[in-house]
Amino acid sequence: MPDIRLDVTDAIATITLDRPKQLNAFTNAMAHELIAAFDTCDRDDRIRAVVLTGAGRAFCAGADLSAGAQTFVADPGDPEDFRDIGGEVVLRMFEFRKPVIAAINGPAVGVGITMTLAADFRLATDSTRIGFVFNRRGIVPESCSSWFLPRLVPMQTALDWVYSGRLVDAEEALTAGLFYALHPAETLLARADTLARRLTDDTAPVSVALSRQMLWRGLGADHPMIAHRIESRALLSRGASADAREGVSSFLEKRPARFPDSVDRDVPDIFGPDLAVPPFRPSH
Amino acid sequence: MPDIRLDVTDAIATITLDRPKQLNAFTNAMAHELIAAFDTCDRDDRIRAVVLTGAGRAFCAGADLSAGAQTFVADPGDPEDFRDIGGEVVLRMFEFRKPVIAAINGPAVGVGITMTLAADFRLATDSTRIGFVFNRRGIVPESCSSWFLPRLVPMQTALDWVYSGRLVDAEEALTAGLFYALHPAETLLARADTLARRLTDDTAPVSVALSRQMLWRGLGADHPMIAHRIESRALLSRGASADAREGVSSFLEKRPARFPDSVDRDVPDIFGPDLAVPPFRPSH
Amino acid sequence: MPDIRLDVTDAIATITLDRPKQLNAFTNAMAHELIAAFDTCDRDDRIRAVVLTGAGRAFCAGADLSAGAQTFVADPGDPEDFRDIGGEVVLRMFEFRKPVIAAINGPAVGVGITMTLAADFRLATDSTRIGFVFNRRGIVPESCSSWFLPRLVPMQTALDWVYSGRLVDAEEALTAGLFYALHPAETLLARADTLARRLTDDTAPVSVALSRQMLWRGLGADHPMIAHRIESRALLSRGASADAREGVSSFLEKRPARFPDSVDRDVPDIFGPDLAVPPFRPSH
Repeated sequence: MPDIRLDVTDAIATITLDRPKQLNAFTNAMAHELIAAFDTCDRDDRIRAVVLTGAGRAFCAGADLSAGAQTFVADPGDPEDFRDIGGEVVLRMFEFRKPVIAAINGPAVGVGITMTLAADFRLATDSTRIGFVFNRRGIVPESCSSWFLPRLVPMQTALDWVYSGRLVDAEEALTAGLFYALHPAETLLARADTLARRLTDDTAPVSVALSRQMLWRGLGADHPMIAHRIESRALLSRGASADAREGVSSFLEKRPARFPDSVDRDVPDIFGPDLAVPPFRPSH
Repeated sequence: MPDIRLDVTDAIATITLDRPKQLNAFTNAMAHELIAAFDTCDRDDRIRAVVLTGAGRAFCAGADLSAGAQTFVADPGDPEDFRDIGGEVVLRMFEFRKPVIAAINGPAVGVGITMTLAADFRLATDSTRIGFVFNRRGIVPESCSSWFLPRLVPMQTALDWVYSGRLVDAEEALTAGLFYALHPAETLLARADTLARRLTDDTAPVSVALSRQMLWRGLGADHPMIAHRIESRALLSRGASADAREGVSSFLEKRPARFPDSVDRDVPDIFGPDLAVPPFRPSH
Repeated sequence: MPDIRLDVTDAIATITLDRPKQLNAFTNAMAHELIAAFDTCDRDDRIRAVVLTGAGRAFCAGADLSAGAQTFVADPGDPEDFRDIGGEVVLRMFEFRKPVIAAINGPAVGVGITMTLAADFRLATDSTRIGFVFNRRGIVPESCSSWFLPRLVPMQTALDWVYSGRLVDAEEALTAGLFYALHPAETLLARADTLARRLTDDTAPVSVALSRQMLWRGLGADHPMIAHRIESRALLSRGASADAREGVSSFLEKRPARFPDSVDRDVPDIFGPDLAVPPFRPSH
């Protein structure tokens, strides 16, 4: 995969945007590699969490503009077939079954910041600057950021950042709630690792996988009955699982749990046909 | 009702989880008693607000684990018929027509904390600790918490708490916005009472009932047109009511209002068939 | 327009509620004038942003109560035809295509505050007080506030303010996130102007128009796939636009951009028939 790297240490996979000379500018190839990397990490039971970071001094400078003024021109044939590729990456992350931590090691601009909105956590260096610069380039917010951003920061802040396209420093992004914590550059990856371990050390992988899908879906669902239906399916399945027997027994016996079940094999379909991912073209 | 108590003082009903020797561990019987208690309070026009608290030193230690490793095993016949009982309690609270204040007097773990998410307010003691411990027991979040929690605290916080299942202290829960205020244990119930009076003293009971349904439903509705439809029905009905005549007249005459209308009799159906509660099994 | 004024200076339109002797109390005529003013501003490409403020010492004292106890009585014929007029104003603002800044220059009560919730930003004077007083008048929240308010402030705060109907001071509204900033009365309009310029100076008008529709719709959409569909349509259209060519070229050439496209002519339909505004009466 020429534009990213995938490294696994213990139970943590690190996906690194790897075009440092171009400040990791986003390409279509990078998008497809990211989707493939998340596919791989989802299937590999040794991997409990993913850290997403950038090589060199930037996280991601945004879309690669080497095609100049034609950068954003597309010809999909039928206009209704056109899909924003950043959105495809983010929707893959949305369906992912393990915690994702963005370790934003430097400037994150355009798709460079919007792709991180589907991460569960955003840690950043003190000197990171971000920009939702679309309106300064004559285009529009993408990567499903119009869904994520107003749910992650106050609406007035989201509108200010997106309307103006201005650069925002790390402190403002922390105060707004977009960043979960700031760290010096030299400890950023270690802190991401610490967080990943805190989430995974004592928890059942299948439970975490279901929690991820449930909370993100719950964030958007229009009525708690939707959550009730999803949770009921999940609880029926997991209540009878080996993981639940081990979780309750280990608690009663005051010993660490060893959860046997596998994300690759044992995650039930909690959405069913009625609550499955909506199709891109519903009229088809 | 063996597992809870229901006391009424002036216009405030107090529902107390009442298994103090078991730290008020949650049982199916307790769930059915809670639903019945909310039914009773909804119908009784003398009751203006409900305080939910626990007997003894805990609020609720979570599911009663006395069945051991089999605790969460269920056999509903048709799997699609299984409903999380905590979710049934919370959905009853969601439809409730009077303010609900959780007075969290001590540890609240598992369903002990998720059942409070459908309360309008959570007051807690300074030493309260909470835990969304499901992933440490091999099960999953329940009681519609996947809908409520990401709407009550920042998403990164919700994911941290749920993924890790770690215990969270009162100060962190206050900062995150889950708790509305902290109070010493000895004044907690008095402060809940003060809040309840502030909400009800000068307000029309039917207006409060409708506000409750409208704001909670509005929190999830996907477009403001949904709110406009609901509000238009409510405003047409209440604009012509004796309460509105009294509310405007008393304001113009600069005197306290005495609102005549009854929650039991005068709450209009503002949802209609098009916006009614979605069924648990939509395909049936 | 007898009840409001519309002034345009440079690229900023100021809409002023203009019944100062009645503290700008809201009338049906005012509502229709507001809708007409937003229509005008939407079509006029010279206008980049709107500031909404009040004449005299108040912003808006709420509904005009000169009809006394009959103020809120309506006879729409078919009850299902009745529409809250405040909601109609707010839905017009929701569809508006330029930034809206409420400059709340004094007391804002009832519809006086709820009409500002569909503004993108609320700036206020230090001494402004607001009140969601509906429950003290025997009526209910309106102007789609049951959709907006729980998205703009924490749910516990929204419920406290609406249940109690109490007056809230500027500092509390700022802390809760309802106000974006407080300013002395004598600089409020200048600060609104500064904010408007920051949002519009370096940005493409059509991009801002689309961002506004996308972020507000995204705030409510139940799944990021909805945003993905909308963003894909917007990006396909704008990616091939003269604005995008200019935006990328000017960035690469390190010079200010001059965006040629027009909100009046060049805003594509990003919602299509599948995601259009839902009808008020869906069953018709």
